[in-house]
Amino acid sequence: MASKHAPRIPEVTAHLVEAGGKRLRPMLTLASARLCGYEGPYHVHLAATVEFIHTATLLHDDVVDESAQRRGRPTANLLWDNKSSVLVGDYLFARSFQLMTETGSIRVLDILANASATIAEGEVLQLTAAQNLATDEDIYLQVVRGKTAALFSAATEVGGVIAGVEDATVKALFDYGDALGVAFQIVDDLLDYRGDAKATGKNVGDDFRERKLTLPVIKAVARATDEEHAFWRRTIEKGRQEDGDLEQALALLHKHDTLRETETDARAWAEKAKVALTALPEHEITDMLRDLADYVVARIN
Amino acid sequence: MASKHAPRIPEVTAHLVEAGGKRLRPMLTLASARLCGYEGPYHVHLAATVEFIHTATLLHDDVVDESAQRRGRPTANLLWDNKSSVLVGDYLFARSFQLMTETGSIRVLDILANASATIAEGEVLQLTAAQNLATDEDIYLQVVRGKTAALFSAATEVGGVIAGVEDATVKALFDYGDALGVAFQIVDDLLDYRGDAKATGKNVGDDFRERKLTLPVIKAVARATDEEHAFWRRTIEKGRQEDGDLEQALALLHKHDTLRETETDARAWAEKAKVALTALPEHEITDMLRDLADYVVARIN
Repeated sequence: MASKHAPRIPEVTAHLVEAGGKRLRPMLTLASARLCGYEGPYHVHLAATVEFIHTATLLHDDVVDESAQRRGRPTANLLWDNKSSVLVGDYLFARSFQLMTETGSIRVLDILANASATIAEGEVLQLTAAQNLATDEDIYLQVVRGKTAALFSAATEVGGVIAGVEDATVKALFDYGDALGVAFQIVDDLLDYRGDAKATGKNVGDDFRERKLTLPVIKAVARATDEEHAFWRRTIEKGRQEDGDLEQALALLHKHDTLRETETDARAWAEKAKVALTALPEHEITDMLRDLADYVVARIN
Repeated sequence: MASKHAPRIPEVTAHLVEAGGKRLRPMLTLASARLCGYEGPYHVHLAATVEFIHTATLLHDDVVDESAQRRGRPTANLLWDNKSSVLVGDYLFARSFQLMTETGSIRVLDILANASATIAEGEVLQLTAAQNLATDEDIYLQVVRGKTAALFSAATEVGGVIAGVEDATVKALFDYGDALGVAFQIVDDLLDYRGDAKATGKNVGDDFRERKLTLPVIKAVARATDEEHAFWRRTIEKGRQEDGDLEQALALLHKHDTLRETETDARAWAEKAKVALTALPEHEITDMLRDLADYVVARIN
């Protein structure tokens, strides 16, 4: 994160990094490499790479969403400005490529470059899909795969690749990361309607206020009466929200039982992640990854 | 530039790419590779990589500068929104890494990852240095090396590296690109005070209005009387600009003859670029690169 020439860079990154966060993604890389018996030094570079890519996307997301809070602190775009968030994000993104290049592995570079492109593509897709009531569960899954699961699966995959294990093991690591990432994002979207602000650091209804169509609403729109459809069109598509709309939205989610169905979907993805683990060697880290899949959905309660 | 999932991406990129531009940077890569006798396919990937990185930085620059025009067209941030410019820029940046990874050359990846980091660092440095009257010619040169010359020198350097030529030739290509990039940016900054809007696509005084301290002003500030210093502090540092300030700024640049001195500096860098070429083989492309150095400063007239 250091920069000899531009002290603004470590200021902005330190603000975000020191605020904490779960560090799930770099941990996945370290765990995968160790599980595969890797003994070199580069799993650390790759873990840092993955967290840098994540941090860069957070900086840019906060500009895109005009967010005011992240990890319980004011966002960098608020403390400094949008310019700093955009450019420091670019710097972290470039640094992540420097770090991964140090591994000397073209295959690793290929995986992480692809993941970066998929993330950006998912974010752009979300821009147009989020406020469009025609967005269905398939498109939602595409967005989620892009904005979240692509980095989870790259994080686990490169851990195996750097260790030089066979393709079937790399595939299992990828499948685990992919399913875990999808479960993680679905839970995130669920907590936005059901969470406890103190525990999650998110306010209930942020996605609704930002007019982001997520799984609980997509399911409710699919079963909406004409009158309900008009409500969603006004609040999400047109963004003309009034007092009491969030309460009405929550009432519709409860009426169609979509929060519980969203929870069921999240649990199914976590199960899928655990099934992928059965192709991996028995190891204390495999057990830990199994617990992690449970943890991701345990956040619901 | 294509994207199966997010049609917004080709829309935004096509708008910028179809607007033209000189395509100097990719041309430098193609020329360097051919000059070095390269016969493989990857100089094309690298030329596209270099132009994608450049296009990504233009998209982000227009957000950072809140620009309304680029290449004679409304900017993407104006036609779509800042969100699209940030995220499509990220996508192009990621795509550039996918393209360079296809070359399979870690050395090429290293050069372009370093250039990307230097560009972002230069842009962040500019954020803090541009409105600070303490910024001197050394810091200006650092900013210019970052935001412009780093990509020029990487463009020429990778052309040689991909061709597998000896280190001295690669070094000469780097030196040429570096000096050419510095000359190019100094001319750009000069034209901002002396240009013809029709020929350059820039309005006279944009940098002044955006409070960007560039070489002509840095030289004038260094020789300012107390009263002149107060003028620059008010207009550039504090940004309290009034009618007639641009005319007053131009009068001060003429009084201290800094536009002519800036031109002399640009010509010296172009000469330096030509000196670097003497270490390269005699070749029609070497002659063309020599002409290019002349062209860059010929834009002044």
